[in-house]
Amino acid sequence: MRAVDAGVEWLIEADGCTHEALRSAETLRALLDDVVRRLSLNVVGAPLWHTFPGHAGVTGMYLLSESHLTVHTYPELDLVTLNLYACRPRPEYPWSAELGARLGATRVRVRCVSRALEPVAGDPNDG
Amino acid sequence: MRAVDAGVEWLIEADGCTHEALRSAETLRALLDDVVRRLSLNVVGAPLWHTFPGHAGVTGMYLLSESHLTVHTYPELDLVTLNLYACRPRPEYPWSAELGARLGATRVRVRCVSRALEPVAGDPNDG
Repeated sequence: MRAVDAGVEWLIEADGCTHEALRSAETLRALLDDVVRRLSLNVVGAPLWHTFPGHAGVTGMYLLSESHLTVHTYPELDLVTLNLYACRPRPEYPWSAELGARLGATRVRVRCVSRALEPVAGDPNDG
Repeated sequence: MRAVDAGVEWLIEADGCTHEALRSAETLRALLDDVVRRLSLNVVGAPLWHTFPGHAGVTGMYLLSESHLTVHTYPELDLVTLNLYACRPRPEYPWSAELGARLGATRVRVRCVSRALEPVAGDPNDG
């Protein structure tokens, strides 16, 4: 049966973070670089970073040979959200511990969503 | 009650696409630009595009003031996957029709995932 498997995506939301951390591109860059290093991901090109004006948040986006890694912060909600999409199997990053230690997060939700499509019934490649 | 709402993310997978479309950064750029235009999204900075070597796919990533829009293609699987993360309400893009017309997709799955965290029980801001 033909597998139509484009890997998995981790969706992470964490709140209770400190405003300072959520406004610090340096802190967020250190977090994403740690994810890249510990999961042996491969960054392609220069990451995109943007600090929104006033009291708004920061966005970072890494294009990976494994797909992508993104972070968005919402200081007004004490909230950070991350996406890690990996089209090849990767171990799980210790999100709760690291988001607590680095950003002060008090609650972390991690969901792992398959990006696979089920094989088509009666697929001619079905053996 | 304090809402901890960072919007919704659409996760789209579509297969049956033509190899030509999945290897064409121009075709994919036209698709993402159409999404941006029709949903009145705001692109921040220059989008990131990468065409992987050989017969591999193409990745595009747009940083938005609404969060992000990404596309990854897998020509070996006839597959494209997209993410649209919007932290303010947006209408739904006609994914099935456009991915069929532009990429030849024969099957399209669209999921809409909340990025909200439930308010904490007993939150001191709970009115």
